[in-house]
Amino acid sequence: MVTGLYAGSFDPIHYGHLDIIERSLVFCDKLIVAIGTNSVKSSLFTTDEKNDLVKGAIFQKFYLHFDKIQITTFDCLLADYARLVQATVLIRGMRSVSDFEVEINLAEVNKTLNKNLDTIFLPTNHNFGIVSSSMVKEISRLGGNVNAFVPNFIANAVAEKFKK
Amino acid sequence: MVTGLYAGSFDPIHYGHLDIIERSLVFCDKLIVAIGTNSVKSSLFTTDEKNDLVKGAIFQKFYLHFDKIQITTFDCLLADYARLVQATVLIRGMRSVSDFEVEINLAEVNKTLNKNLDTIFLPTNHNFGIVSSSMVKEISRLGGNVNAFVPNFIANAVAEKFKK
Amino acid sequence: MVTGLYAGSFDPIHYGHLDIIERSLVFCDKLIVAIGTNSVKSSLFTTDEKNDLVKGAIFQKFYLHFDKIQITTFDCLLADYARLVQATVLIRGMRSVSDFEVEINLAEVNKTLNKNLDTIFLPTNHNFGIVSSSMVKEISRLGGNVNAFVPNFIANAVAEKFKK
Amino acid sequence: MVTGLYAGSFDPIHYGHLDIIERSLVFCDKLIVAIGTNSVKSSLFTTDEKNDLVKGAIFQKFYLHFDKIQITTFDCLLADYARLVQATVLIRGMRSVSDFEVEINLAEVNKTLNKNLDTIFLPTNHNFGIVSSSMVKEISRLGGNVNAFVPNFIANAVAEKFKK
Amino acid sequence: MVTGLYAGSFDPIHYGHLDIIERSLVFCDKLIVAIGTNSVKSSLFTTDEKNDLVKGAIFQKFYLHFDKIQITTFDCLLADYARLVQATVLIRGMRSVSDFEVEINLAEVNKTLNKNLDTIFLPTNHNFGIVSSSMVKEISRLGGNVNAFVPNFIANAVAEKFKK
Amino acid sequence: MVTGLYAGSFDPIHYGHLDIIERSLVFCDKLIVAIGTNSVKSSLFTTDEKNDLVKGAIFQKFYLHFDKIQITTFDCLLADYARLVQATVLIRGMRSVSDFEVEINLAEVNKTLNKNLDTIFLPTNHNFGIVSSSMVKEISRLGGNVNAFVPNFIANAVAEKFKK
Repeated sequence: MVTGLYAGSFDPIHYGHLDIIERSLVFCDKLIVAIGTNSVKSSLFTTDEKNDLVKGAIFQKFYLHFDKIQITTFDCLLADYARLVQATVLIRGMRSVSDFEVEINLAEVNKTLNKNLDTIFLPTNHNFGIVSSSMVKEISRLGGNVNAFVPNFIANAVAEKFKK
Repeated sequence: MVTGLYAGSFDPIHYGHLDIIERSLVFCDKLIVAIGTNSVKSSLFTTDEKNDLVKGAIFQKFYLHFDKIQITTFDCLLADYARLVQATVLIRGMRSVSDFEVEINLAEVNKTLNKNLDTIFLPTNHNFGIVSSSMVKEISRLGGNVNAFVPNFIANAVAEKFKK
Repeated sequence: MVTGLYAGSFDPIHYGHLDIIERSLVFCDKLIVAIGTNSVKSSLFTTDEKNDLVKGAIFQKFYLHFDKIQITTFDCLLADYARLVQATVLIRGMRSVSDFEVEINLAEVNKTLNKNLDTIFLPTNHNFGIVSSSMVKEISRLGGNVNAFVPNFIANAVAEKFKK
Repeated sequence: MVTGLYAGSFDPIHYGHLDIIERSLVFCDKLIVAIGTNSVKSSLFTTDEKNDLVKGAIFQKFYLHFDKIQITTFDCLLADYARLVQATVLIRGMRSVSDFEVEINLAEVNKTLNKNLDTIFLPTNHNFGIVSSSMVKEISRLGGNVNAFVPNFIANAVAEKFKK
Repeated sequence: MVTGLYAGSFDPIHYGHLDIIERSLVFCDKLIVAIGTNSVKSSLFTTDEKNDLVKGAIFQKFYLHFDKIQITTFDCLLADYARLVQATVLIRGMRSVSDFEVEINLAEVNKTLNKNLDTIFLPTNHNFGIVSSSMVKEISRLGGNVNAFVPNFIANAVAEKFKK
Repeated sequence: MVTGLYAGSFDPIHYGHLDIIERSLVFCDKLIVAIGTNSVKSSLFTTDEKNDLVKGAIFQKFYLHFDKIQITTFDCLLADYARLVQATVLIRGMRSVSDFEVEINLAEVNKTLNKNLDTIFLPTNHNFGIVSSSMVKEISRLGGNVNAFVPNFIANAVAEKFKK
């Protein structure tokens, strides 16, 4: 049985993330979508809010596979968390050459810290390649429309944050 | 059931390839190692010779999993071959940024030509990251020792070619 | 008046090229599409054939702007040819980081050889980013369908070449 | 008529910017140089100061073309601002491979948000390729001389800031 | 006599740094290891602490060559500091393509500011290629073990910081 | 005593090569400029001609240091040749990101084959960054002037080749 781990800050989750999740379900028997809560970067949404948005978006798109997907939070080293949940495959989306270098290094570090954890890269679909959480936030902050990049209820949630 | 496809010219197979195969076995129920025979590039070994070297190397290293691995040849489009053998996951090793760009494009082309075929990238292990078939041939051509990069019986086969 | 120069081997012209031409018409009063005939690389189509395919594709797509576009061939240095046709802007599509480095250098060389020639880059549309002439030929050579990448009459012309 | 838009934070404007402006004048009938004022990054100069420095530098170098250049500020999405000022061509300088990836994505985002806005890239002149606003500020902060990178009156303005 | 300069923030020094120092000793008669103290980035260790860790690590590993190595601090422009200590060769480790672009630019800037200072790059050893000070700190912050990346007494010092 | 090795095909030697040689003399007590003669790529000049051009160019520019420079040819593995001539430092120019990746791999391969050989990279001077032997040949083949890239007597030798 293959347990995959897809971790991120999901601040917020967007169509690029959902595409990676969909494609991971092809080769994972179980997929853990894990929201990291111990970053030094400040985030727009609280952990509870992120959790709600991730659950909403995943339920909307993958309700038929919902039993294969588990949504969690973690605040330790990713390599340790993978050991805890017995994941053997760490899934990462890759958009760009810059991503590639950072990710290749992280994969080695994670292998050093947990020898049973291998990293697999999925190239982002060119339709979603340009999406990133920070881009969604920046466009929304400046009053732009982000419905092309995230589900409507998330677009509203982001816009709401910048009204405050 | 996940059927993975790992294709290449394997001219000859080296430790970098074997590492990718080993790691693919973690998430593939069946792995097809396919030797492409319709390249415009000239190759050092004939298809029969490549086949023997691939079989030898894989049997030596993976005899316990040999029932999960199938070694084949193909001379059509990779996307068509994947359809034929019902593979849904195409596995590629990635060594470098230059690889990354070429591979990202190939992945999109293959998706365009076969919508059921997704490409997965495995970063090469840093111990094998420097290995490539062309490097092995170039070193051997100039009289160098390639035992650090391929199994001994392959090192001998390559050296033999350059004696002729 | 801005005269743009868009040069290439066009072996054959594809949708990515046509996209660059369309976008160049926004800021060029006159656009010269020039087929280079003095490459050391062998080509699939003869210069006459390339000329016919370029004319056909451009007429089909841009018949309303056909007076602004001039289709020519050249066999000298691109920098010298630009001087001859009094082009001040050299237009290049850019698909990838690898393109970028080569192109940045070519732009400097061309500036050194013709100080009145500046190079402008257009990023390729992500819908056409994966198209290249060599990819079209490779897919067609192996029996694949290239209608997603070139107009039908060109797909047929390429397929015809590989039948012979 | 081609209206070009060249936007940035210009904190402060330097010789690399001026080179891009000069070369844009070749193919733009009108060029809008727009200072963004709604960044989340803190800046050394106030918007009024940036405006004065941009005007001074442009007047000094392009007084013959001053009627073609318009200097403005904006605090909304760039794609929306382009629509407002009816610019169809967004001009960006490109120094490096890292720039390239970010810029390629921004170009797609801007096209998504404003379908009449195309992005054009100018490779930076190798004499100015190493210049950046942050580098100018860092050198000046540590007491270095930046006269090779910006006009004298700007070098003085930057040095003055770090005296305070 | 060749005086080399190896500067950094060393927050903290790690095995990658020590590898560069070891290899620099091959072609430098004297090597100055200089800790920059005037960065805008906040650091984990104070200058005094960094100094102690650098001295400890270098003494432990290079006590036979200790007379060739000088450990200093500086708070001015690196190009000016090189002039002060009469270094003609600036040594930089290079891990990645992203490093490469930044470093190439810095090398040009430093040459512009001090024409007697040339920059030399050493590719990082693939065993240490994944090490960076920020990675060491991030792993330690999240409770991970960093003994593979730094000497034990430094691993303890980092862990101690995050206990506080 | 530091013996440096600067190897290449020098087909022909150009100003970029001469710049690297000049800067290597700063930290090498002896510099071996070695022309590789066992490449699979065809070359424009014969080994004897390359030798003459390299000697001519080096004598013209470095006659004061001519005793420190030795010009040789080799037809074995570079790592073996370095061992033979007791060079401990292999010098490589680096122009671009693409160079970087290839070179980083070569450096590791050479270290694997000869543990006493370390590779040092010099970034090419931005004035010569665009020069390459293949570019010089291509421009000359198409009738262009290459005096900006190579000494006059070499420009003539290249032009002569394409007259034949």
